Amino acid sequence: MDLAEAQGEVDVKTAFMPGLPGFAIKVSPGFFDNPKLDLPSVSGMMMVLSARTGRLEALHLDNGYLTDLRTAAAGAVAARHLARPDARVAGVLGAGVQARLQIQALAMVRPIERVLVWTREGAKADAYADEMTRRLGLDVIPVESAEKLVLESDVVVSATPSRTPLVVADWLQPGLHVTAMGADAPGKNELHTGVLERADLLVCDSRAQCARLGELHHALEQGIDVAVTELGEITSGARPGRTGPDQITVCDLTGTGVQDTAIALLAYDKAKAAGLGTTIEN
Amino acid sequence: MDLAEAQGEVDVKTAFMPGLPGFAIKVSPGFFDNPKLDLPSVSGMMMVLSARTGRLEALHLDNGYLTDLRTAAAGAVAARHLARPDARVAGVLGAGVQARLQIQALAMVRPIERVLVWTREGAKADAYADEMTRRLGLDVIPVESAEKLVLESDVVVSATPSRTPLVVADWLQPGLHVTAMGADAPGKNELHTGVLERADLLVCDSRAQCARLGELHHALEQGIDVAVTELGEITSGARPGRTGPDQITVCDLTGTGVQDTAIALLAYDKAKAAGLGTTIEN
Repeated sequence: MDLAEAQGEVDVKTAFMPGLPGFAIKVSPGFFDNPKLDLPSVSGMMMVLSARTGRLEALHLDNGYLTDLRTAAAGAVAARHLARPDARVAGVLGAGVQARLQIQALAMVRPIERVLVWTREGAKADAYADEMTRRLGLDVIPVESAEKLVLESDVVVSATPSRTPLVVADWLQPGLHVTAMGADAPGKNELHTGVLERADLLVCDSRAQCARLGELHHALEQGIDVAVTELGEITSGARPGRTGPDQITVCDLTGTGVQDTAIALLAYDKAKAAGLGTTIEN
Repeated sequence: MDLAEAQGEVDVKTAFMPGLPGFAIKVSPGFFDNPKLDLPSVSGMMMVLSARTGRLEALHLDNGYLTDLRTAAAGAVAARHLARPDARVAGVLGAGVQARLQIQALAMVRPIERVLVWTREGAKADAYADEMTRRLGLDVIPVESAEKLVLESDVVVSATPSRTPLVVADWLQPGLHVTAMGADAPGKNELHTGVLERADLLVCDSRAQCARLGELHHALEQGIDVAVTELGEITSGARPGRTGPDQITVCDLTGTGVQDTAIALLAYDKAKAAGLGTTIEN
């Protein structure tokens, strides 16, 4: 729902997965005048409902934290199936929360030694490099262009709110994997459509949703026909991920309700085990 | 969202109204095996979000109570504009929670002296009559047929989960008002389509929603063309309600998110003023 007069929007997501004890309903408000009030733009919460009775079991007042984590985790899942096992250089476009978390998650599944970072405003890349060098104990290096970053990386993560493509097909070298996770609305766009055409394997978290909100949207809009594999088809073993060191792979992530249900249940289990939270009789 | 394997469903409703300080998002789970576990089928909650920042201000863990109230209040609003001012006999089809609350609310806006009640299972009507006689201090009388009930009433409220029409056009007398509020899904149906055709004034809470889920749905499906006024057009003064004592008026209510926002904000204000609730730092 758009709330134009408050520069706001609210998204609600849910997913029921047969066999799990609960399911999440997530409410994500984004109000873009909030920084003027010294408040973050994004807030939000996740409800955990019993899959057997529908009753509320828990409410995570997480202000988007669990969404940040599951989004980064999805990037790492994509990299585990699509990036070369020996990927050592990661490039990240953007310097926001996801640019941080995606690289942190990626470093858990691939032997990353160096991180290259590029942003439109160079100062943000410098600050990112300082902070992430300390946090990860890796070389994190600002580079002067997106082109240089893509040419020198084994894995590229684009994590920007860009509305014009940042990566073009000419820069793609054999063996590269690219995950684009910034686009979550029809107007957002990080990869030139040529990148999708050039990919030997193009993966979406949800084909239907990427066709509406993701990089895939722009290809379809231009009448470009590309073969798409869903990430779940790969994680379940139904279809292969990367099958050789020279393949170029691209993954378009828009975020799904299934991921919210998964992390909300995990957080609930961990909180219960640790005795955290406030209990309210209802 | 339907959860077939748990005999469950979850509905989410919301409405933003410019000028109000907040808006509600309501989550209504209905899990129809719950009675086997000694739990009510319906639970649910309403979130109150700031219209300025999107942040959570309150969570009503009301298990559907506020929905029950706003649904009954909507019935009274309809009656205030559509029933004859001198309506003294109310007839109610059904004996559930809404059959109770609708009559209670109706008695606040019209000089009701007698209530007739009919249910498919007569015993339920007897119990309803006993309880409501005590509660309202009015004559509440079970009747043996829906026909007799309609013929003898000034206002009829149908509040059943019926899937076949209970009221036919031949029973409608001049001056009658009928509110049908049981249907909230395409398969539900309380009024024969002839009742809608016969009405001098047919009102819906939401034309679009009644066309999908309400009594109107069945008329449209049969290709019957009926003129519809929205209840909001009448309450705002843009269009008249009842204009004479002999009109037959019919109101089709399916429930709207605007009602949820209205009652959630009211309950929040009252709770704040009374110092109720639990405060959680976030």
